[in-house]
Amino acid sequence: MSELFTVTAADGAARAGVLRTPHGEVPTPAFMPVGTKGTVKTVDPDELRGLGTTILLGNTYHLHFRPGEDLIAELGGLHRFMGWDGPILTDSGGFQVFSLAETRRIDADGVTFRSVYDGSVARFTPELAMAVQASLGSDIAMCLDICPPVDIGRAELAEAVRRTTLWATRQRAVPRPDGQLLFGIAQGSSDPELRRRSIAELSELDLDGYALGGLAIGEERGVMFETTAWGAELLPSGKPRYFMGIGDPEGVLEVIDRGVDMFDCVLPTRTARTGSALTWEGRLNLRNAGFARDPRPLDEDCTCPACARFSRAYIRHLINQQELLGLRLLSLHNLRFLLELTANARAAIEQGRLAAFKAEALGRLAAAV
Amino acid sequence: MSELFTVTAADGAARAGVLRTPHGEVPTPAFMPVGTKGTVKTVDPDELRGLGTTILLGNTYHLHFRPGEDLIAELGGLHRFMGWDGPILTDSGGFQVFSLAETRRIDADGVTFRSVYDGSVARFTPELAMAVQASLGSDIAMCLDICPPVDIGRAELAEAVRRTTLWATRQRAVPRPDGQLLFGIAQGSSDPELRRRSIAELSELDLDGYALGGLAIGEERGVMFETTAWGAELLPSGKPRYFMGIGDPEGVLEVIDRGVDMFDCVLPTRTARTGSALTWEGRLNLRNAGFARDPRPLDEDCTCPACARFSRAYIRHLINQQELLGLRLLSLHNLRFLLELTANARAAIEQGRLAAFKAEALGRLAAAV
Repeated sequence: MSELFTVTAADGAARAGVLRTPHGEVPTPAFMPVGTKGTVKTVDPDELRGLGTTILLGNTYHLHFRPGEDLIAELGGLHRFMGWDGPILTDSGGFQVFSLAETRRIDADGVTFRSVYDGSVARFTPELAMAVQASLGSDIAMCLDICPPVDIGRAELAEAVRRTTLWATRQRAVPRPDGQLLFGIAQGSSDPELRRRSIAELSELDLDGYALGGLAIGEERGVMFETTAWGAELLPSGKPRYFMGIGDPEGVLEVIDRGVDMFDCVLPTRTARTGSALTWEGRLNLRNAGFARDPRPLDEDCTCPACARFSRAYIRHLINQQELLGLRLLSLHNLRFLLELTANARAAIEQGRLAAFKAEALGRLAAAV
Repeated sequence: MSELFTVTAADGAARAGVLRTPHGEVPTPAFMPVGTKGTVKTVDPDELRGLGTTILLGNTYHLHFRPGEDLIAELGGLHRFMGWDGPILTDSGGFQVFSLAETRRIDADGVTFRSVYDGSVARFTPELAMAVQASLGSDIAMCLDICPPVDIGRAELAEAVRRTTLWATRQRAVPRPDGQLLFGIAQGSSDPELRRRSIAELSELDLDGYALGGLAIGEERGVMFETTAWGAELLPSGKPRYFMGIGDPEGVLEVIDRGVDMFDCVLPTRTARTGSALTWEGRLNLRNAGFARDPRPLDEDCTCPACARFSRAYIRHLINQQELLGLRLLSLHNLRFLLELTANARAAIEQGRLAAFKAEALGRLAAAV
């Protein structure tokens, strides 16, 4: 039996590897496009595959409320429901409970909040988070964690770490489908002792992989990267390391360089909704009048379907006229930009030249701004 | 040199044929998806081709105001701008002038109105309508006509017919790109004498094809089909006949049966925006709770990308969550439904069995309601 995760090359702290899931292998580092409500906004599964997507993220919170995990299970599980036969990671819903609800009440057993859909009172527990993800049938499930705001006091942060460990212990004991992996989420913000404690406690549970949670939520970026560096180093080296919620090109390079294997972000599709494209010339706002007659593709070096065929002028016209094809073309492009950047970083790691690759990429991106 | 239009088979009044344009041949009868603002809403050119689209319609009015024909010409013309290398027919903008503006003033020379985009005063003349379409570089240009409302008095209708002929005569004299075809539009509502006069006068201009305009604008459907029947018969038999603005499956079959070769409609994409699918079970409103757990495709007989892979339950979820992929999948399906219906009608004409084909199709559609 082959291992779940194999590191195939290392370059400094960075590594290239392969993660094995019931729906196929994921070469790492891997960027995971976010299919919040069972779809990566505007994009279909064939396009995702064509862009180089190897694993998707689905949001347990949203799918639990709409259309509900029972309905999805009845229709054959999330893969079949959304027509994607590759690997899927589902988050635990915890982040949405803590970011979408205006108020919530945490007790020893779980968290009570109001649904963002209809305001009704809802409750998540580690057992429910596992049951929902089991019904969805994702390849990788995440433990329900407590993600406190960045400005929380230390006592509360310590309490969040303590409960996150207890909840992971409980969730691990809940039955799940054969082959479904379970990842833990380390909390502790940038507090050296608390983050270390969270990692140590979760590591003892021997989960299939580990995420650094509670980062990229408003803390200073230097601190975030520093925490990522020592946090990743403390995590079990034979398990995949997942940084939750980073998708800007610079940030992606920084966390890969610090030993992160997986990451997700809504940035590509959210940036598209603002009418902007990620490019090696920087972030282009297509609404700018300067693009009105620009015959060039979004990015000269890009191989995405939008750049293969359409001009900046055309995409600007679509965006200005609220034509959905414009949003779709920008989404395709932005996803491809990050997927290609990640694939190229992986190749650089394999060839032992990540430092040079990163320096060159950061230089181009910095010159563009 | 081959003829512009060849009738290859006839079955009663109906005919199958081939229309030759600078960007390729169009088998007729042909349904033309509408790319109002330089895009068939949510759908890309490769998808259009895959659905069996052989010719698109572009809206001169909208493209004139946004982004403007000069910009499109500078970027290589409408084909290159929107990435579609097949035939394109552009309307004259007349229909929008008469349907979108709240008021307008017609004089001998043209029509003055306010732009729907910014309320500024604008003016269309036959010369402008030709110049705009020449700049867009469409394969088929349409003459600027006067399309009066269905309840207009007879004297005004006669005046509209008179001016439509004069304007067509003027537009015909304006230079246009090599190979660009020019179609006239017969008016006259359902008035036997006026419609006949319009057709006779326009026929003398020996244009490349003829449309029946001023129908499907609110008149009784029986009257519309009757007018179509005798109107089509009066049109030159060696030229393509275009019914402007019909797209419901029953209506499409009726006009094909009466000798119409081409037609366009926004119905497939507009129906998609209401969350509905055209099927052999009738028009399905995906918002209905009955589809919540329905694992079937939109239509069991359909070969579109939506039906190949996704359930009604999934598409309903997308529509309910305002996910744009839902709108896109419904658009793909509805376009395919009409394109396939039209292609099958053509095959039936070639085999001399249109009456049986139509009766069976209408029977299925009627049973569904």
